Amino acid sequence: MRGRLAVVGLGPGEARFLTPEAAEELARAEAVYGYGPYLDRVPVREGQTRHASDNREELARAGAALEHAAKGARVAMVSGGDPGVFAMAAAVIEAIEAGPSEWRALDVHVVPGITAMLAVAAKAGAPLGHDFCAISLSDNLKPWHLVEQRLRAVAQAGFVIALYNPVSKARPWQLGRAFELMRTLLPARTPVIFGRAVGRADERLAVVPLEQARAEDADMATCILIGSAETRVVPREGLPPLVYTPRRAGGAA
Amino acid sequence: MRGRLAVVGLGPGEARFLTPEAAEELARAEAVYGYGPYLDRVPVREGQTRHASDNREELARAGAALEHAAKGARVAMVSGGDPGVFAMAAAVIEAIEAGPSEWRALDVHVVPGITAMLAVAAKAGAPLGHDFCAISLSDNLKPWHLVEQRLRAVAQAGFVIALYNPVSKARPWQLGRAFELMRTLLPARTPVIFGRAVGRADERLAVVPLEQARAEDADMATCILIGSAETRVVPREGLPPLVYTPRRAGGAA
Repeated sequence: MRGRLAVVGLGPGEARFLTPEAAEELARAEAVYGYGPYLDRVPVREGQTRHASDNREELARAGAALEHAAKGARVAMVSGGDPGVFAMAAAVIEAIEAGPSEWRALDVHVVPGITAMLAVAAKAGAPLGHDFCAISLSDNLKPWHLVEQRLRAVAQAGFVIALYNPVSKARPWQLGRAFELMRTLLPARTPVIFGRAVGRADERLAVVPLEQARAEDADMATCILIGSAETRVVPREGLPPLVYTPRRAGGAA
Repeated sequence: MRGRLAVVGLGPGEARFLTPEAAEELARAEAVYGYGPYLDRVPVREGQTRHASDNREELARAGAALEHAAKGARVAMVSGGDPGVFAMAAAVIEAIEAGPSEWRALDVHVVPGITAMLAVAAKAGAPLGHDFCAISLSDNLKPWHLVEQRLRAVAQAGFVIALYNPVSKARPWQLGRAFELMRTLLPARTPVIFGRAVGRADERLAVVPLEQARAEDADMATCILIGSAETRVVPREGLPPLVYTPRRAGGAA
């Protein structure tokens, strides 16, 4: 039998976001690989082996899963959110490109999931209702000047910005710098949404104007959406506001 | 009872992409609103009314659903893909902002879904593995010069670009112009992915170098991903290639 590696998106947390396709791949896998906390979300099944690894060992984890699949096994690699958005799918294919030719003969299947920015946006209203972009704020894999250059380009061009990986112990100052930069380019009242652990029991959502956005309010589990100059906040009595970016832009009739 | 309006993302097509949360909202709704072809994807349920409308009547459709919910009903508005990405959620909130105060008292709930670019990316590999953006190519709601300005900004800054609404009967030339512009900014070999009806029985995926990308190969059901200069194609013998954008960029070690 030809081996199969499915790279499976678990969505933002709870089972209510897990697609039937993802659930089926997990049920049929002989082995499941993944970063420990993601693996913990997968129900234990008899006869299925589990292989947890550290967050930073992406290429090693991809290689181990590919090697296993190359033996003819049906393997699942789990990823939070969508595996194709700052997650495991790119690492797996990078490993395939660099690895032995038999890895290129595997049945590789990426199963999409609800990525963090979609879950945060849904919780807030429709802040991604117009053109938007997703940027990883991590400068582990790209130089910081490139992050700033990209932030500047998209803010000036009117995109709503979703920030992934905003902060970590090893990257304490980057988000503050990003907010400073944004304050030079966007109106002070531009809505900024902090979505922490959205889709999980302890989820937290906060909407603040850019002038009050503070890096200390984010952690590793936070996805941040920075509005454009057109993004609006609709206040509601006794209810959280609704944030949305109009479908119309640039003075179109 | 306080009325409820759930804006529900159906994902890219088949039931295997519909999240349990979306399925539950549809099952509990007393009335379902939506553009005809999306409504056709929702199983008919006894005692549930169905209200189909034309593609272009977004604000009118939102108003009708809100009015219905304001009577105390449990209403679902369906949307293809994710309702917050170039879809119904922004139209609903725009209607709420402009409408009677009772609409702001409704229980409004946006249910995220797998948006087209995630489904197309998964099918192709991991082309959205690094920074990316989503742009609607429609100039119905924004002037064309703004579309070009945004395309230019993100291509120059190294983003992968997902194009929504690439073409329609009323907008025949815009995609060709976008490709022409991209050819002045990106290498001729930059991978371009045409994903048509991905997630449906008649899905079609094509990967071509930018120099060969033709607007005639897209229609209204197509989502197009234009790689960055770093996006790679991994050929496989007897199998479709895998396209991915490396996690590393800008010469980071």
